Amino acid sequence: MKLRYHPRMFSHFETTVLLQTLFLIAIVAEAMTAALAAGKREMDWVGVCLLGCITALGGGTVRDVVLGNQPLTWVQHPSYLLLTGGAALFTIAVARYMHKLRNIFLFLDAVGLVVFTIIGCDVALRLELPVVVVVASGMLTGCVGGVLRDLLCNSIPLLFRAELYATVSVITSLLYIAGLTLDFNHDLVLAVSMLSGLALRLLALRYGWSMPKFIYGGNIH
Amino acid sequence: MKLRYHPRMFSHFETTVLLQTLFLIAIVAEAMTAALAAGKREMDWVGVCLLGCITALGGGTVRDVVLGNQPLTWVQHPSYLLLTGGAALFTIAVARYMHKLRNIFLFLDAVGLVVFTIIGCDVALRLELPVVVVVASGMLTGCVGGVLRDLLCNSIPLLFRAELYATVSVITSLLYIAGLTLDFNHDLVLAVSMLSGLALRLLALRYGWSMPKFIYGGNIH
Amino acid sequence: MKLRYHPRMFSHFETTVLLQTLFLIAIVAEAMTAALAAGKREMDWVGVCLLGCITALGGGTVRDVVLGNQPLTWVQHPSYLLLTGGAALFTIAVARYMHKLRNIFLFLDAVGLVVFTIIGCDVALRLELPVVVVVASGMLTGCVGGVLRDLLCNSIPLLFRAELYATVSVITSLLYIAGLTLDFNHDLVLAVSMLSGLALRLLALRYGWSMPKFIYGGNIH
Repeated sequence: MKLRYHPRMFSHFETTVLLQTLFLIAIVAEAMTAALAAGKREMDWVGVCLLGCITALGGGTVRDVVLGNQPLTWVQHPSYLLLTGGAALFTIAVARYMHKLRNIFLFLDAVGLVVFTIIGCDVALRLELPVVVVVASGMLTGCVGGVLRDLLCNSIPLLFRAELYATVSVITSLLYIAGLTLDFNHDLVLAVSMLSGLALRLLALRYGWSMPKFIYGGNIH
Repeated sequence: MKLRYHPRMFSHFETTVLLQTLFLIAIVAEAMTAALAAGKREMDWVGVCLLGCITALGGGTVRDVVLGNQPLTWVQHPSYLLLTGGAALFTIAVARYMHKLRNIFLFLDAVGLVVFTIIGCDVALRLELPVVVVVASGMLTGCVGGVLRDLLCNSIPLLFRAELYATVSVITSLLYIAGLTLDFNHDLVLAVSMLSGLALRLLALRYGWSMPKFIYGGNIH
Repeated sequence: MKLRYHPRMFSHFETTVLLQTLFLIAIVAEAMTAALAAGKREMDWVGVCLLGCITALGGGTVRDVVLGNQPLTWVQHPSYLLLTGGAALFTIAVARYMHKLRNIFLFLDAVGLVVFTIIGCDVALRLELPVVVVVASGMLTGCVGGVLRDLLCNSIPLLFRAELYATVSVITSLLYIAGLTLDFNHDLVLAVSMLSGLALRLLALRYGWSMPKFIYGGNIH
């Protein structure tokens, strides 16, 4: 099944501006939490800066490379590199105060997850790709940045074990796609899918919800 | 040296169907063994599902991205994502019985290695790339999925240490290319190269054959 | 800001030949040090060979994939795969003598860093990309090979902690771009930026210079 994407579905100019603003806030928040992860591994300032850029922009980069959607976002908007690298460096200065802002960053990280997911879906919809690929594009955009961060910090990606992170991305995508397919108002669909995803993620964090784990003790090879 | 690839070399319709069937069996088997690896690391169900997809389809994805062979296989056939993700989830239910099927899975993994290798060679041949790149394309397709699985499980890729895994891929490629260059019947070349590769891998598993290791104790940097 | 790149800026044929020669020396040196890293992890001969290729050619590969600069260097020049793979294998034979050559390899690694950086800048300049992306392209080319090596050896990339490695790449890029923007003679710009980068890296190695580290002990998530 393919969805036709009508650019005019973005009915309101404000919606686009809102999504873009949330995107900028989200990449800054992602870069700052990545900087803290770098600090845990005692990386130097350049490493902090690079890890910030890679975490914030890596998901979109992998999505665009995989879908052949050239040129990449940060090639078209190189200021995003400066913004995320700068945010990571800024984190070094304010790190000592950040534990007080822990809840704000968890909130912004959740916002980032749903915003990245929606943007990833939009990219795939614009390329008129099948539904399953639209969901995959949303997940790649929302989740791969964190996977790269964890890989470069030499730990098993949190994504594979954390509280509904990938699940939230899938559910957000499915609500968004379902709403568009049923031809509801685009702004409404956007609001409902984003708020649902956000609520689920925050509830999962609050009550420690998680997917069941698969624990296997046998030999593989 | 470049090889010209004549699509009619696939002389029999049955051959294509056989290769395609073996491909589907192989991606299911790869997804299922990846699910067991995920269970060893106590990943949650979503992680199991993702690791299954990435392991089964990652080799072809990296090959196509590197060779600029857009669109990717799973973008054209999104059902492969559902198939491998589903197989990984199914593994959770049947994991307790899988140690009894250990030999079958080792066999299917070996089949996957040679089938992926041949398919990778075919892609590069169709793009009329040089011989060395054809071999590299076969190796990328056959081996990268397992490397991604091991990276995401935070272990040194088995590929770099295991029983003739990459070697089998190279030998299968070389036999296949040599046979086509000498203008033998395509089906015969396919059968001989695949069976040789399969036999080598199974013998290596049975008798613990491996490449010599390089052990270096000095300082690097 | 975009820089226009005039192919005639490569005013002297000898410059191109020099850069190309240095490139070949550098990929051989990178492959050989990667082989030693593989030996530390007791990889087998095939693993040594693969790690050599990936380390030497991985930076340029990621750059070209990210910038959509198809076909890749090693697809156009497959002999580079044979050269780097062969150099890695050769290292197994001569490893016992290599500690005596440690300083030569550190020197060649530094040469590689600046040569790769300049080549990466040139690729992005030819694609008429913005300045920030030109610097990023230089860094990707100069630094990603080593990151891939460290990831595949399951250690935290040295890049994020080592002596001015990424910093040297950035400074080399900036000098090169500044010189071209100010319309100085291309060969002069090339020589000054490369020698400055090389000197900085060698001084950093000699005197143990490094960027300040960011050490963070709090909780992240």
